[in-house]
Amino acid sequence: MKNHQYAIADYNLKVAKNELRAIHFLDEETDKIDNPSALLKHFLMTYFLDSQSLAIRGQKISQIMASFEDDALTYLDKNAPLSKIAFYNIALQLLQFTVGEDFLIDNSITKMQTLNLPIADVHDPMNLYDVICAWYLLLNTHTKYGVTLIDYLAGEGYFAQNYSQFDKPLIFNGKSMPVYDTNNLIREVVYVEAPMDTDNDGKLDLLKTEIIRPKESNKKAVPVIFTASPYNQGTNDADGEKLTHNVNLGLKHKQPNTVSLSDISKKEKEPELPAARNVEGKTRKAEQTFSREQSYTLNDYFLARGYAVVYSAGIGTYESDGFRTTGDKYETISATAVIEWLAGNRVAFTNRTDNNQIEAYWSNGNVAMSGRSYLGTLQIAAATTGVAGLKACLVEAAISSWYDYYRENGLVMAPGGFQGEDADVLAAETYSRKKSAAEDIKNEKKWEIQLTNITNEQDRESGDYNAFWNKRNYLNDAKKIKADMFFIHGLNDENVKPINVSNIWHAVDPLNISKKMILHQGQHIYINAFQSLDFTDMVNLWFTNKLMDVENDADNLIPNILVQDNATDQNWYAIDEFDEDENLKRFELAKPSDGSKVADDKVSFSDSLDEKDFEAYCSDANKWENDLVIGGSDAPINDNRVIFTFDKLLKDVTINGKTHIHLTASSSKDFGMLSAQLIDLGEDFRLNAQPESVDHAKIQLGYLWREDNLREFKMSRKKTPFKKIAEGHINMQNRNNAYQVSDLQADEFYEINFDLQPNVYKVKAGHQLAVVIYATDFDKSIRGNQDVKYTINLSDSAVELPFNKD
Amino acid sequence: MKNHQYAIADYNLKVAKNELRAIHFLDEETDKIDNPSALLKHFLMTYFLDSQSLAIRGQKISQIMASFEDDALTYLDKNAPLSKIAFYNIALQLLQFTVGEDFLIDNSITKMQTLNLPIADVHDPMNLYDVICAWYLLLNTHTKYGVTLIDYLAGEGYFAQNYSQFDKPLIFNGKSMPVYDTNNLIREVVYVEAPMDTDNDGKLDLLKTEIIRPKESNKKAVPVIFTASPYNQGTNDADGEKLTHNVNLGLKHKQPNTVSLSDISKKEKEPELPAARNVEGKTRKAEQTFSREQSYTLNDYFLARGYAVVYSAGIGTYESDGFRTTGDKYETISATAVIEWLAGNRVAFTNRTDNNQIEAYWSNGNVAMSGRSYLGTLQIAAATTGVAGLKACLVEAAISSWYDYYRENGLVMAPGGFQGEDADVLAAETYSRKKSAAEDIKNEKKWEIQLTNITNEQDRESGDYNAFWNKRNYLNDAKKIKADMFFIHGLNDENVKPINVSNIWHAVDPLNISKKMILHQGQHIYINAFQSLDFTDMVNLWFTNKLMDVENDADNLIPNILVQDNATDQNWYAIDEFDEDENLKRFELAKPSDGSKVADDKVSFSDSLDEKDFEAYCSDANKWENDLVIGGSDAPINDNRVIFTFDKLLKDVTINGKTHIHLTASSSKDFGMLSAQLIDLGEDFRLNAQPESVDHAKIQLGYLWREDNLREFKMSRKKTPFKKIAEGHINMQNRNNAYQVSDLQADEFYEINFDLQPNVYKVKAGHQLAVVIYATDFDKSIRGNQDVKYTINLSDSAVELPFNKD
Repeated sequence: MKNHQYAIADYNLKVAKNELRAIHFLDEETDKIDNPSALLKHFLMTYFLDSQSLAIRGQKISQIMASFEDDALTYLDKNAPLSKIAFYNIALQLLQFTVGEDFLIDNSITKMQTLNLPIADVHDPMNLYDVICAWYLLLNTHTKYGVTLIDYLAGEGYFAQNYSQFDKPLIFNGKSMPVYDTNNLIREVVYVEAPMDTDNDGKLDLLKTEIIRPKESNKKAVPVIFTASPYNQGTNDADGEKLTHNVNLGLKHKQPNTVSLSDISKKEKEPELPAARNVEGKTRKAEQTFSREQSYTLNDYFLARGYAVVYSAGIGTYESDGFRTTGDKYETISATAVIEWLAGNRVAFTNRTDNNQIEAYWSNGNVAMSGRSYLGTLQIAAATTGVAGLKACLVEAAISSWYDYYRENGLVMAPGGFQGEDADVLAAETYSRKKSAAEDIKNEKKWEIQLTNITNEQDRESGDYNAFWNKRNYLNDAKKIKADMFFIHGLNDENVKPINVSNIWHAVDPLNISKKMILHQGQHIYINAFQSLDFTDMVNLWFTNKLMDVENDADNLIPNILVQDNATDQNWYAIDEFDEDENLKRFELAKPSDGSKVADDKVSFSDSLDEKDFEAYCSDANKWENDLVIGGSDAPINDNRVIFTFDKLLKDVTINGKTHIHLTASSSKDFGMLSAQLIDLGEDFRLNAQPESVDHAKIQLGYLWREDNLREFKMSRKKTPFKKIAEGHINMQNRNNAYQVSDLQADEFYEINFDLQPNVYKVKAGHQLAVVIYATDFDKSIRGNQDVKYTINLSDSAVELPFNKD
Repeated sequence: MKNHQYAIADYNLKVAKNELRAIHFLDEETDKIDNPSALLKHFLMTYFLDSQSLAIRGQKISQIMASFEDDALTYLDKNAPLSKIAFYNIALQLLQFTVGEDFLIDNSITKMQTLNLPIADVHDPMNLYDVICAWYLLLNTHTKYGVTLIDYLAGEGYFAQNYSQFDKPLIFNGKSMPVYDTNNLIREVVYVEAPMDTDNDGKLDLLKTEIIRPKESNKKAVPVIFTASPYNQGTNDADGEKLTHNVNLGLKHKQPNTVSLSDISKKEKEPELPAARNVEGKTRKAEQTFSREQSYTLNDYFLARGYAVVYSAGIGTYESDGFRTTGDKYETISATAVIEWLAGNRVAFTNRTDNNQIEAYWSNGNVAMSGRSYLGTLQIAAATTGVAGLKACLVEAAISSWYDYYRENGLVMAPGGFQGEDADVLAAETYSRKKSAAEDIKNEKKWEIQLTNITNEQDRESGDYNAFWNKRNYLNDAKKIKADMFFIHGLNDENVKPINVSNIWHAVDPLNISKKMILHQGQHIYINAFQSLDFTDMVNLWFTNKLMDVENDADNLIPNILVQDNATDQNWYAIDEFDEDENLKRFELAKPSDGSKVADDKVSFSDSLDEKDFEAYCSDANKWENDLVIGGSDAPINDNRVIFTFDKLLKDVTINGKTHIHLTASSSKDFGMLSAQLIDLGEDFRLNAQPESVDHAKIQLGYLWREDNLREFKMSRKKTPFKKIAEGHINMQNRNNAYQVSDLQADEFYEINFDLQPNVYKVKAGHQLAVVIYATDFDKSIRGNQDVKYTINLSDSAVELPFNKD
């Protein structure tokens, strides 16, 4: 285990004393203690819960060893000088490290250092003030199992012994503490009246909104975390599957055109809206409740800490009005309407019929959004409206432009693992409104038309960027963002690809907001229960600053860009910039390394396979990827790609950004696609693709409240021969841009430039970089198994690699 | 989905009326309703929670379709005759089946039948009494997601609206309902003083015992479910790993002996016990509490239903005294001491020092045990003492004799997947007492001696049944069992093999107790959240009968032996007997089918491999198993086994019990082992080995209480060529029995008889049965890669197959 904590706020003796008093470790009695050992014993007695007897607490303390000779009770009862080593012997055991297995008695300080756990700057032996400061820091230090000791203690029932005795909210070291009784949460449903009528029934769409909030919010308003999740009222998986497109189709020649961006961006006339409902009455009493919601565990964590949590699934979902649109402005309005209600700027009703208004009187008007993937996407969507009340977005693995999710440079390009999915499929999957049989039957025909429109407008035929995709490109409005933005993205995310986070990151760069980003080594995952990083603490610090207006230095403490190292496990570091395209190094693609024959400075590859091999690759993308990169001369794919391998690296090199591919190439047909991968070649141990559970440890998000599984990436047990760093694809007819189609003549050479996905990736000394050029991507592109030959002119082809400056 | 419910108790109109009154669906107001539609509407209004407004409830009802034309609200408000089809249209939607996807309106009755959901015997149109009976039955019918509708409704908050308004306990259709507020559970720790001193410190061992019980138990005693889990105070995985034995060792010649069973069973002198502690005081107030326990979700289910749940890990675990022994009588006493305390027959203290006694005043004295694997094993252990208070055991995948867990017929034989594990490894793993540093250091040397003794006594050298194993054979005392016994075992359990359940089943056969058994198609798993079987309801019915003394006909309703079919999914059926060895059919092993050469009526096979192939099989047991059965002539293993394939079956045949192997065989050395597998050969779809989650559905075990993931076995997507039905192994020197060693001369022929694991297995027409004879089992036996040749005399070798009578 290697600990990385960024969210420990600076403190001094005064702060430590005040805050320890607020959480009842210090009081008038302790002011009288004049011996450091006695004070530490008092802390331990308090730690083991006032609700337990003195005998039990003594029993607990005497299970801990303070030195080779003495258990902690014996040691402290001597009232002899308290050594720093003894303190940290005890500390490590409280932090759940086991003597013998994890560390040896009297090796505690070295061990703290090795584990990267903070050590208080104190005298040895320790004085009274040292004990206070060291104890304060210890409570803010992560245990072996990925939470601060005070959070662990809360899970043991420290605050729950008597919730009523603690301030609410209770801020400790800049973070809000779990002092709210999660057994007493209020759960209610309202219907927000949104300014749209997407099912065209002459009435504004009502959006079912689920609220969970502490009872205390009845008296004192609280901040709100809102998760807009189109999934959380259920999904229609069978419908989605039925609609999934066949991808075993050939590429076709496209009619050249001169479409311009302004053609695509033409504003459409806004439809006239129906009148708002007449408010017939006003109440504070909700009429509907709900049972177990589909929750995000990070929201659960905040529910114990004085935040309300709101879920709303938006138009076309169960018990809401309207139809799904997969990312257009009406889905944005689904999110902003709820935020407006939470900020006091929009009407909601207690049910669908009686027009009885209910206000979010319990909201302090400060709203954050949270969630991953589509849930993160709707955060970007909402933020780009500049909606009032939205203060902070925790955007995880989100789409910034739907074209970058389902398309690439004029090609249909699936999210990794979801071949054949498209905007229409997702709309059908999330149209949970149909789970109500009456709603389904009433709206069947209208919905069918809506879905057909999406299918047509998404245009799988061309793959071009068009008006449909432009309406789903949030980057267009990025400058309107007013909320602070915290982006989290997996550098190995093949579902929502990293270009999405890079683009929005650069789009918000000029804005005067707080901007943070974490780039981890995961795929499309959450990272709020990892052993090596205090992500949850950082979010607490940041939200507490943004929504509770607590001055806790969050913006300084949290690095602007934090990256997880790919070459070692449990390693995180801050960087100054990401994907700035500054230090490009050009490598000519001069000589293939895979035996491809070069004639007249040209090299060719095919794109067709025997039917059997084709089918094998279709059904096993891993096999395809493996053969693509390291399949020998007998791999079926051997004639279908060209590999260029560069010199063995003499020192570690870090790639930061997008690799640019410059090819002069021809197709034997009047259509064609080109793909490229940048590869890290070299037998080595690498991080596994999936995080694993750590010792089956559970994180308690409160006291007997919800929990999470602690996870971490482990290094592979066996060496692997390579790892893909990045990939990219282009339709040769979209060589100018994604919206405009250029002509393509068979066997004519064209200059084709395209970028691979951005990454931050350390290539180790002794490894080699390689570039693979090919056409069909079995995992993501359409797959026609067409008889096409591609030729690269090696005298005019190169890659530019974004090496880190150093 | 195919539903199997055994736990629906018989009822009539009177019962239905009374019980619906008790759960507030009927009351004085409803007595006045004279229209069937109006009554059903009332039921639906009540179903959608009194805590929600009338408008919301109307909204909910109007989402349901009652007929092609009308939603349920419109339909029922007409007060027209209520058709049976309309009732079941509504019913299926309440049961969470979706119109369109799962069924079509007006096809409801056929659909109910197809899904094997019970239909009330009512008139059409329905009268008032019909509505009452049908609604009552519906509440007891399983939803799409594996729980009764009343349990689903409880999860929606039906009882939680006002817990105080319901009787406690509340029995509905013979089962106890979740009317206990799980937010108000009492959690306390006591230390039971057990009659033993396993760490030899001159004091009786104290056993930490964790109690969770409803607050109501303070006033009215409740029954107790006790889970004795050596794992639930933590485990020392690293220690276990370190101790794991090398299995790449050769078999050796054993010195013949004439050991008898009575030599092995000699009673040892009981050590004198230290005096019990003096009771210094008495209290009802516990001093220690605990936070999130390691729970079994079935126990969680019962916590909402008026049962207390008790966990105790036993000697040598964290915060208890003593040392682990892996299954001897002291671990049995660890369990019985707690039961005795729960039944008022033993002393417990509030802490380890003050001798302050605390009674289980909240226990009604009726104790059941639950848990799987080691947790089930300790149930058999406790039951075989006949301890007073223990009324019922829910024994899942348990060991009935530890020899059948770690040994077989004179061979070291690992639990599948745990090569090198043994009694000492398990003892080290579960010795969580050492997680307390002070306890670890204090007891280090004594514990080392104890562990060394286990290592010596378990005797991996011989593999024979000896005094060590005899002390760990609960079958010896099976006749003392007084508790009712419910066994659950996976027919594919290679960890705790099915011989364990078969032996205990037959051992309790003559006893005058209630005996039930479920044999499922899983490996070493729990089955309390399966879609196709109402297992949890059955346990509720059974426990409510045994521990709450409710007359609910549990023993008649629950089949004595219930088996899950292996040939189809979601299929369960009752059988009359298991493994009775009655209808044996003999097949001569006359002609190998795998090309093995026969000379002079003899066939030989080797047991050695190239080093590379040996290592490959060592690291991939699946590859070995596959090659063993269907590896062609180029499989490395081709000379290392002989296969006998029988005629293609003309009709389905069911194996029920143990296959007997009769070989006349020689070894080329003065030692040898023989193994055999019975195989179902034939390309076909078969159940996957692991159950899968169903629609990601969660089962709510109460209201906002804990939850479980709904699972079910699915058929494989691809056909598989074979499935192992059973296997067995024997040391040729143990051909008489497991405790006595016979001589073995190289190249001499001996008659060797041994049994394969019992099974209930349907072999489909068109398939073939096959028997494979070999020596080393790469997954379970020691693996010496020794140059041994085995020869079978085919003129005197056969198998006897236990075909079902039919």
